[in-house]
Parts: sequence; C-alpha cells; structure tokens
Amino acid sequence: MPKKLAILGSTGSIGTQTLDVVAANPEAFQITALAAGSNLTEVRKQIELFRPRLVSVGTQESARRLRDELPPELARSVQIEWGEAGMLAAASHPDAEMVVTAVVGSLGLSPTIAAIQAGKDIALANKETLVAAGHLVTEMAAATGSRILPVDSEHSAIFQCIHGESRQSVRRILLTASGGAFRDKTREEMRRARPSDALAHPNWSMGAKITVDSATLMNKGLEVIEAHWLFGLPYDRIDVVIHPQSIVHSLVEFEDRSVLAQLGSPDMRVPIQYALTYPERITADWPALDLVAVGSLTFREPDPDRFPILRLAYQAGRTGGSLPAAVNAANEVAVDLFLREKIGFLEIEQILLQIADQHDVISQPSLAEILQCDAWARKTALQIAEKISKY
Amino acid sequence: MPKKLAILGSTGSIGTQTLDVVAANPEAFQITALAAGSNLTEVRKQIELFRPRLVSVGTQESARRLRDELPPELARSVQIEWGEAGMLAAASHPDAEMVVTAVVGSLGLSPTIAAIQAGKDIALANKETLVAAGHLVTEMAAATGSRILPVDSEHSAIFQCIHGESRQSVRRILLTASGGAFRDKTREEMRRARPSDALAHPNWSMGAKITVDSATLMNKGLEVIEAHWLFGLPYDRIDVVIHPQSIVHSLVEFEDRSVLAQLGSPDMRVPIQYALTYPERITADWPALDLVAVGSLTFREPDPDRFPILRLAYQAGRTGGSLPAAVNAANEVAVDLFLREKIGFLEIEQILLQIADQHDVISQPSLAEILQCDAWARKTALQIAEKISKY
Repeated sequence: MPKKLAILGSTGSIGTQTLDVVAANPEAFQITALAAGSNLTEVRKQIELFRPRLVSVGTQESARRLRDELPPELARSVQIEWGEAGMLAAASHPDAEMVVTAVVGSLGLSPTIAAIQAGKDIALANKETLVAAGHLVTEMAAATGSRILPVDSEHSAIFQCIHGESRQSVRRILLTASGGAFRDKTREEMRRARPSDALAHPNWSMGAKITVDSATLMNKGLEVIEAHWLFGLPYDRIDVVIHPQSIVHSLVEFEDRSVLAQLGSPDMRVPIQYALTYPERITADWPALDLVAVGSLTFREPDPDRFPILRLAYQAGRTGGSLPAAVNAANEVAVDLFLREKIGFLEIEQILLQIADQHDVISQPSLAEILQCDAWARKTALQIAEKISKY
Repeated sequence: MPKKLAILGSTGSIGTQTLDVVAANPEAFQITALAAGSNLTEVRKQIELFRPRLVSVGTQESARRLRDELPPELARSVQIEWGEAGMLAAASHPDAEMVVTAVVGSLGLSPTIAAIQAGKDIALANKETLVAAGHLVTEMAAATGSRILPVDSEHSAIFQCIHGESRQSVRRILLTASGGAFRDKTREEMRRARPSDALAHPNWSMGAKITVDSATLMNKGLEVIEAHWLFGLPYDRIDVVIHPQSIVHSLVEFEDRSVLAQLGSPDMRVPIQYALTYPERITADWPALDLVAVGSLTFREPDPDRFPILRLAYQAGRTGGSLPAAVNAANEVAVDLFLREKIGFLEIEQILLQIADQHDVISQPSLAEILQCDAWARKTALQIAEKISKY
C-alpha cells in the first residue's frame, strides 16, 4: 500500500523536490492533499500529475481561479480550499498518514500542530515550528504518537547516525555549516552586500529566505535550536563546524568517542526521501557521491566576530521560553526587509540583537502567547528597522 | 555481570589494547583465558592484573618457566597450558562468552574455528581466518549462533554504519586505506626499500607483519576479502579509496545514495571496545576526534600500477576456493623473508603473483584441504624466493 501524504508548501523548493521523490516512486507514495500559496500554474500541474483529494491555495480569489482553470473532470475530483482554514484541512486530512511541512517561516506552526493533534507523522522541513514552540510540539507529539522526522539535511544526517543507537550513548552532535555566501567575506564586505550577493549560496539551491539565513548563520542557529528539541540534547552538546564543501551533512560523537557521519552530494531529495521511507531506504537513481572527485573535505571553527547571530541563537535557545519565537519572527521580518533592499545585510543582526534585548521572556508560553510574541516581534522589528535604516 | 573473555594473542598489539579496554572497565569485563607466545614477562604481568583461569603459552618449556616464576598462590589459581592444544583450550574455555582472536596470520584459523564450534561470540582481529576459510567459518557461525564481530577498524566502521539498517539497503561499501609507508613512493624507491622504511607507517601503530601488509596494500586486499565474508557482498560492491589521514575508517553507500561513515582518531581501542560491548557503547576517556584540528580529509584512487597486489587480492577473492588461503600463506612467508632482509620489498609481490599462477584451486576446500594449500604455498613461496632473490 502506498503511503498517503499531505504536503504543505507544495510549490516551494522542498515541496517540489518532495513531489519529485513521489513521482519517482508511484508504488510507494500517494498524494492526498496539497497546500500552496499563489503559484497557480504549478498547483494545476501538480493536481494533474498527482490527483490529490484536497488542494488549498492562499486566497479565496486564487481558489476560484484555480477551479475555473481546471478541466471539469479534474475540478470535480478535487476539493479546493483556501487560506489558513484550507491549510489546516490539508494538514489534518483524515486519509493522510504523513504530513510534509515545507511551509517557510512561522506560518508553518499552526498547521504542523494541527497535523500532530490529528496523530499524523510529520516530515518536518519547517524548522521554525520547533524553534518557536519546541516544548509544546514535542509534548504533543509524545501524547498523540506522532513521529517527527527531520527533513533538514543536517538533522536527517543526525537522525540517520543515531538510528539503532541508544539515546544515552550520544555524547555530542556536530552540525556542519557551509558558511553561506559570506563565509570568506569581511564585515565591511557584508555591510555593502546586496540581496543578489547573499543569494549566491555556494552549494545548496534553496529558497530565498533560507539562503539569506545561511549567509547570516541564523539558519545554523535555528538548526541548533531545532536539534535541541528533536534529539533532546542540551546546548553544550550541540556544536557547529564550518564545512565549506557541504558533503558531510552532520556528525554524531558517541560516548565511546566513535563518530558517525552522514555524507552525500548536496541534494535535498536524499533527506526528503529518508523521512518519507524511514526506517526503510528505497533505491534512488540520482548520482552517487564520488569522494575522489570531491577530493578534500575541510573543517574549521565558525567565526563569532563576523557572525554574531550564531551566538545570539545559542543564547536564545538557552534562555528558551518565548525568546526563540520572538527572535525567529524578527528574523523573518528583517530578512524580508533586506531582500526588498529596505535595510542592509548587517542590519539584520542589529534588529535581532535589539529584539532579544527588548523582549520580555515568557518561560513556558502557550501557543496563543507564542503567536502574541511573534506578532510583537514583527511589529517591533519594523519599528527598529525604520529607526536604524539608512535608506 | 561482567562479560567473560578469552584473548588469543594477548601480548600482541591488539591483545594488549584489548586488555587496556578491560582494565578501564573492570565492571564490564572479566578475563577467563589468555593465550600468548613467548613474551613471558608480559604474560606474568597480565596474570597478576587480570587473574585468568587458564593461560596458554607457545611451548612446554615456556609453560614450565612461567609456572616457576609465578608467586605460588597465583600458580595455584591458574591452569597453565601450551602449544596448539593450549590455544584451543583457551579458545573453547567453557566459561568464556566471547573470544578475541588477535593471533597474527593463519595460525589463528584453528582456534577461531574451535571457538565458533563452542558457540562463542568472536571479536575477530585475525582477518586471515575469513580470508582462508570464509565459506567454512560463516557457515559454522550460522549453525552454532556465534556472532562474528569485527575488530579491524575498517570493518568495525562498516559494522557501525550498517547497525540498524537492512542488509538489502546496502549498495556499496568503501574501505579506506592510509596507503601505507610507500603511499607516495615510486616503484624504484620501493625496490630499494628496507624493512625499517616499510615499518614507518604514517598513522597507525601496529605489529610488523600488518605494517608491511599496509605498505604493499595486501592488508587492504585481505580486508576486501574479509568484508566480502563479513557483510555478504559481492566484490564489485566493495571498493577501496586512499585516505591518507586515517580519520574516516570506512563508508557505506545505501540504496538511496545516502552515505554513512565512521570516523575517529587512529586508535584501535575504539573498534576493540565496540566489538566487546556491541550493540551497546560505553563511555571511554581517550581523546575525542577534533575535526577542526585535523582540518582536511582527502581521498584518491589507489594506484594499481604501483600496488599490483591489491588487484591480485581482488582476483584471489573473486576466484575463491583455496586461492585466498594460498596467497595469504605465501604472503606471510614473503613478508617474513622481507623483514629478515632475505628478499626485497617488490619481491613480495613477485612471489604472490607466481603462487597465484601455480596454485591448483580447490573450489570448496575442507579445513584439511585449506591447511594443505597453506602448507604448499609456504613451501612453494620459499622455493620461489630462493630463485628470484638477489641476496
């Protein structure tokens, strides 16, 4: 029997790669529900190819246009919804066994929680869910029996390395970071950087927001917090190492000082497929890693002076409570402002530092409190941006 | 309850490091039996420290001297045996749960088989056992329920990577090789090499025989054959890559093209302890791997023109039957002659090539036939050496 999937964020980078994996393995997977935003051309193609039972798009207007554009026989076979309610319907569709949460940003929080409450397994590509609400999400998943399977390449690597090992035998995990577009740049070069500079990621082809997060190392900071919740490890047992080639996706050091690592070409389809097939692996025909062709794998410490956001993220994680949600929400605003050229690259970190300073931390926030802190952080980040921006 | 161990080859490199692991974990392990050769000073120390029930040494004369030198109260508590019968008694001691076979060369074959027939788990450091009699040993182990746990760092790495994975999901294994002392030498430099040159291994501190085998790449060839039997893989799914830093101990490529690797400082205590504690891991206080200090891990193809023995070993493995036993026995003779400066370094490979040419392969040899082929190969190797040697 094929595994029935719902994909939230089906037209984004992770969503389309997930559908590549599904298309290559029609006997293994079936698409029950898709949720997307405004890319109706892509959504229509996906409906034609995968015949989902339910599709949700961003707005009522998009839903109407989509219905009109579909061939009548397809329009009859698919339920078309829209907005947050539509996304929640996709996330908790009774037929879906697993929900792939590939929505970017804190927008993914509520539907992920809905899927967990409905007892679905989660293939988690939305790291903000665990960053903002790790304590709630892990508790709920334990209560409903939902398994949270990481899709991020680093967390998938850790997950693969600890498979079959006991939790107590893990001494330390080591997340690798490419170092992003500004790995070898000076602070002065970063100060002058334009969005196109930050979007020139050396190894991975990803969405714009995560590519800027790679350039600030905020992406790695979010991953540290995500790893804390996924693997139940304290922050002093989660380290980051710069590995420019992005071949070693992360490592685990065990209590006997043996180290396991997962490697591969930078191709998100590998961790996506592992989350979908876990604990099995199925044959894939994409190119194998050729270590001899790669030749050399290098490792160095991250530079805290050039990338202060990584330290800030650790501090936010250690403080916990509502602080990670606030810093994450402010980061979404700041990255968006940077991409629209409203602020400079280094002003992203200024905004986050000020948000962390100003935020009144709630120690065990409810979902409502998290959403309030998120809203406060977005509003405040905009105000800070207006004050500090040179534009 | 501590796990009760017998160690065959207790005064050698692997034997003493096994006892280091035991000494560091007295609550986890207990020594039941030890077998050694002629290093009586070391054997006496080991008896005092570990209080085995049975000890076997090389000769009757050594056994008598050992008994005389022991304090009377110790001499009463330990049964002292000698020779092959003594080694077999240690290998099949009724109290031992696991036998560490750290004897060098084809000498380890009979006691390993005795231990398997007695249903013991085997921590296998004697790769010649599987090289010479892989078909018999794996069949016997399946029949008696003995588990064969690899101690070689490469095979331990593979074993750690496939733990928890299904056999069918393994696509290919990749054994790493430091390249040995002559990794970057020309054939002309090898021709003039003295034993002291071949014994200057870049990374690992090991016994003399295996260090010379590293310099010829015969060690890697033997490991390829060992891996074939341990992991049930055809030879075209076992590859070798030169990795001069000896940090990545080996890698597994799975059907989904994900690659797992095991890494660590070059310290045999890690794979030894893993074999002893498998499937658990216990805390060790030796230094952790510092990837940033290592800085760079490099990989390249082995050079078949400079190291023809690796290809010969693959051919021997693929042909199978009694050929690997014959080539292995001839190699033991040739390495011994080289270490005693009776032949030059490149004459090792000449001897092996001629043995492979001259050997009449028996396709499913019995243990007796394997021992006959071993004896034939030793005698013939000496004859070839006499003919070709320039000394």
